[in-house]
Amino acid sequence: MASDFLDSLKAELGSDVAFGSDIPARFHTDWSGMTSVVPLALVRPRTTTQVSQTLKLCNQYKIPVTPQGGLTGLAGGARPIEGGVALSLDRMNAIEEIDTVMATMTVQAGVPLGAAQKAAEHAGLFLGLDLGARDSCVIGGNLATNAGGNRVIRFGMAREHVLGLEVVLPDGTIVTSLNKMLKNNAGYDLKHMFIGSEGTLGIITRAVLRLQAKPADLASAFCGCPDFPSMLELLKSARQRLGSALTSFEVMWPSFYDFMTGNLPHLRRAFTHPHGIYVLIEAAGRDADDNRTSLEELLGEALEAGTVSDAILPSSEREAQSLWAVRESVSEYGKLMGPMTAFDVGVPTSAAGELVDEIEAAVQHRWPDAIGLSYGHIGDSNLHFVCNIPSAGQQQPHKEITELVFNFVAARGGTISAEHGIGLLKKPYLTLSRTPEELALMVTIKRALDPNGIMNPGKVFDCPPL
Amino acid sequence: MASDFLDSLKAELGSDVAFGSDIPARFHTDWSGMTSVVPLALVRPRTTTQVSQTLKLCNQYKIPVTPQGGLTGLAGGARPIEGGVALSLDRMNAIEEIDTVMATMTVQAGVPLGAAQKAAEHAGLFLGLDLGARDSCVIGGNLATNAGGNRVIRFGMAREHVLGLEVVLPDGTIVTSLNKMLKNNAGYDLKHMFIGSEGTLGIITRAVLRLQAKPADLASAFCGCPDFPSMLELLKSARQRLGSALTSFEVMWPSFYDFMTGNLPHLRRAFTHPHGIYVLIEAAGRDADDNRTSLEELLGEALEAGTVSDAILPSSEREAQSLWAVRESVSEYGKLMGPMTAFDVGVPTSAAGELVDEIEAAVQHRWPDAIGLSYGHIGDSNLHFVCNIPSAGQQQPHKEITELVFNFVAARGGTISAEHGIGLLKKPYLTLSRTPEELALMVTIKRALDPNGIMNPGKVFDCPPL
Repeated sequence: MASDFLDSLKAELGSDVAFGSDIPARFHTDWSGMTSVVPLALVRPRTTTQVSQTLKLCNQYKIPVTPQGGLTGLAGGARPIEGGVALSLDRMNAIEEIDTVMATMTVQAGVPLGAAQKAAEHAGLFLGLDLGARDSCVIGGNLATNAGGNRVIRFGMAREHVLGLEVVLPDGTIVTSLNKMLKNNAGYDLKHMFIGSEGTLGIITRAVLRLQAKPADLASAFCGCPDFPSMLELLKSARQRLGSALTSFEVMWPSFYDFMTGNLPHLRRAFTHPHGIYVLIEAAGRDADDNRTSLEELLGEALEAGTVSDAILPSSEREAQSLWAVRESVSEYGKLMGPMTAFDVGVPTSAAGELVDEIEAAVQHRWPDAIGLSYGHIGDSNLHFVCNIPSAGQQQPHKEITELVFNFVAARGGTISAEHGIGLLKKPYLTLSRTPEELALMVTIKRALDPNGIMNPGKVFDCPPL
Repeated sequence: MASDFLDSLKAELGSDVAFGSDIPARFHTDWSGMTSVVPLALVRPRTTTQVSQTLKLCNQYKIPVTPQGGLTGLAGGARPIEGGVALSLDRMNAIEEIDTVMATMTVQAGVPLGAAQKAAEHAGLFLGLDLGARDSCVIGGNLATNAGGNRVIRFGMAREHVLGLEVVLPDGTIVTSLNKMLKNNAGYDLKHMFIGSEGTLGIITRAVLRLQAKPADLASAFCGCPDFPSMLELLKSARQRLGSALTSFEVMWPSFYDFMTGNLPHLRRAFTHPHGIYVLIEAAGRDADDNRTSLEELLGEALEAGTVSDAILPSSEREAQSLWAVRESVSEYGKLMGPMTAFDVGVPTSAAGELVDEIEAAVQHRWPDAIGLSYGHIGDSNLHFVCNIPSAGQQQPHKEITELVFNFVAARGGTISAEHGIGLLKKPYLTLSRTPEELALMVTIKRALDPNGIMNPGKVFDCPPL
C-alpha cells in the first residue's frame, strides 16, 4: 500500500518529489524549536496542478499532508509527520501581476513577503503587511496563519489584505477564486475559511492581495509614562488626534526596556530618568511638517496632562532608528537569555497592565531567578512575554510556565494566541480560549472539508475520526 | 405533525409568536419589490435563548426558518416562505456596551444602524458603516448580507467592522464568540462564515463592532472630467495624494447626472458646460485647512494635466450639501422613473467605462425609449445601473434586462452583486459569477452546518437534499 503510494507519487511528480534521507534538513521542522521529523516524502510542486495531483493521491491513500511555506512559524504548524508528505510551496514563487488601477497584486503562495513588498513599492504602491521574518516567510504561510506583525493597528492582520484566493481542497479540487474587487457579495466568501486555518482545510496556492497608497511621511515619538493607566490615556488621545494616521503604538515595560538597554551595548537609554512604562508611537502623514506638528501637539497636551512624563521627537532618521532599535532588538534576546518560553497572548487592552503585573510577580515568586520581559502591540491588545529561568539551564520548565501564563490570560478573557497561531505547541491549551461550542463547530467544518483527515492532522485541534 | 409543531412553538414562545392573519403585513416581504408571502408563524424573540428554542423546534420538525432584520434588503433574502417560520430580530435591539478603551460596541442584532452610529458618536467614537437605509436597516441584517454603502473605500464592507459574533446554529446551539480583540489567532475565525451568508447558515444574535476615531474634518470636491480614462487618472492621483484620507470617490455618468438635474427641480447643475463624466471626492483630515489644501493641490495638478476639465471646492457646508444632493437623489428615481430594474454589479475598475458604454448602448438599441442611469462607487469597483422602459409600463422586461446586463458583466470578469447580495432575485445568475467548484464548496458548507436545510432555504443557491 505505502509502496503503491510512493510509486504513484513518483510517477506523477517525477523529480519534484524526494524521499527519506534525500529530504534536506530544513524541511524537518520550523522556527518553533520543536524536534525534527523526517517525513516519508517531500513534494515541491511548481504548479497548482501538481499540488492537486499530490493531494488527490494522498487523499486516496489517506496519507497525511503537511503544507510548508517559509517555515518561520513559531507554533510548530509546519512540522512534518512521520509517514506523511511534506508539501513545500517554495518553488511556486512568481509574482504574476500588479494591477495599479485596482491596486492589487496576484502572487503564488511561495513568494517571500519581502519580495512582494519590494515589488509593490517598485510599482508605486505599498503592501501593508510586515513582520520581522519578512525575507524568510512567504505569502502562503502568512495567509494560512493569518500573520500579524508591525502594522496591524493601521492595516489589519494578513486576512485583511486578501481579496482573492486559489485553494486546493484535500480531494484535489482546485477552487480558483481570484477576486480582485473590494466588494463582492455573490455567494459565500470562501477565502476566510482558509485564512488562519493553518493548513488544516486545504492548501493556498495563489492570492490576490490588496495594496495601499505609499505613506508619504512616517514620524516617530518615544515617551516615558508614569504608569499603565496614563499610557492608556495617551493611547486614547493618539487615536482621537491621529485617527487613521496612527500606524504604531508599541509599549515596553521596564522589565523589557531595562534588560535590553542594560545588556546590548549598541542600545542606549533615551531618558536620564527611569519611567513606569515606555511607548513608541508612529504616525503616517501626507506632509512631513504637518505630521510632526500633530505629534508635537499630542505630546504637548499629554505632558501637560501628566499622562506622559518625558518625550522625545527625533530630529533625524538616525535618531528615530536608534529609538526603534530597542523595540527591534527582540530578535536578539535569544542570544542573551538562552532557551526561553515565549508568548503572544491577547487581552482586552484595559486589562493588560494588571495581567503583566500578575504574571511577572507570579513567575518571580515561583522561580526567584527568572528573567521575564514584557512588551507588546498594545494598540492591538497583543502582549508578548518571554521568560528564561537561568538556574534551569537547558531544561526550562516550559509546561509549567505556559500553564501559569495561560491561566492568568484565560481568567481575563484573553486569547492564548493573538498572532502566532496554535500549531502543535499551543494545541493543549486551546480550550482556555474557545468554548466547547466553538470547538465543535471547528470540527464540523474540518470534517466537511477533509473527511479523511489528511490535511495537516494534529495541528490546531484534534479531530477524532467519525 | 404541523399542529404538534405549532403547539410546541406556542408553548415555548408564548406571546412572542403570531400565526397566519395575525402576522403584520410588514413581515411579508422586503424592499426587493417581490410579492408578499404570509408565513406559517412569526417569532419575535427577546433573547438568544428564545432564538435557540425556536431553531431547535424548527430543526426537529424540519420547518424552514427565514431570519428577518430591518427588511430593507433589495434581493428578497428576507422574504418568508409559505409554511415556514419568519424569525424577526426586531425586539433584540439593545446596545449592550460601548468600550471606549478597546473602541468596540456590543449590540444585539436588531439594533438599527442609525442608532448604533448615534451611540458611537455620543461616546466620542465613530462607526464606519453607513448606508442610505440607516434608520430602517439593523445590524444583524447588515452583517448577514455584508452590507456595503458610502464609506467602503475607507472603512471596508460590514464584515470589516466585526470583531466578534454570537450565532445560533440551525440545531439551536448557541455559539458565543464575542471577541473584542483586533488580533485573535486561537483556532478558526468562525464569524466570517456567517457574515454575508444571508441567513442560510445560522442566525446572528449579537455582535461586537469595531469603532473608529471620529474624523475631525470632511472636505468635498466636485469635478467634471473629459472622459473615463482621465477620471481613472484622477482616481490614481487621489489615492496617491490622499492615501487613507480618501473617504469617497463617487462617479456619475451623464446619463445619471443629466437625468437627475433635469428632472428634480431642487437640484442644480454645478457647471455651465457639460462634461464626459462627473466625480464627487471626499477627504477626511485632522485639520480643516490642511484637508482643503490637499484637495486644492490634487485638483490644481489634475486641471493642469487635463484629467479634470472643471472643478468646484465648495466654500460652505451648504454648498457641499448641494453638490452631494445630486448623488443622494438616488432614493428619488423611483418616483421619477416608475418601475425599474436595478443593478449593483462589480467589475474591475479599468473595465467599468467600457462596460457602461456597452450596457447603455445595448439597452438603447433593444428598447429605444429606455431610460438607463449609470453611477457608482468607482473607488470600490462597484457600479449601479437602473433602467426603466417607459413603453413597457408596469410590465417591465426585468428578466431580459437582467440577462443582458449580467452577460456583459460576466464577460468582463465582474460580479453580479457587489453589495446587495443574491437572495432570491439574483439566484438564477449566480453561476455567472462563481465557478462550479466554488458553488460545490458552498453546498458542502451548507450541508455540514444545516443538514436538514431549514435555514433560509431557497436563498443564494439551491441546496438539493442528499
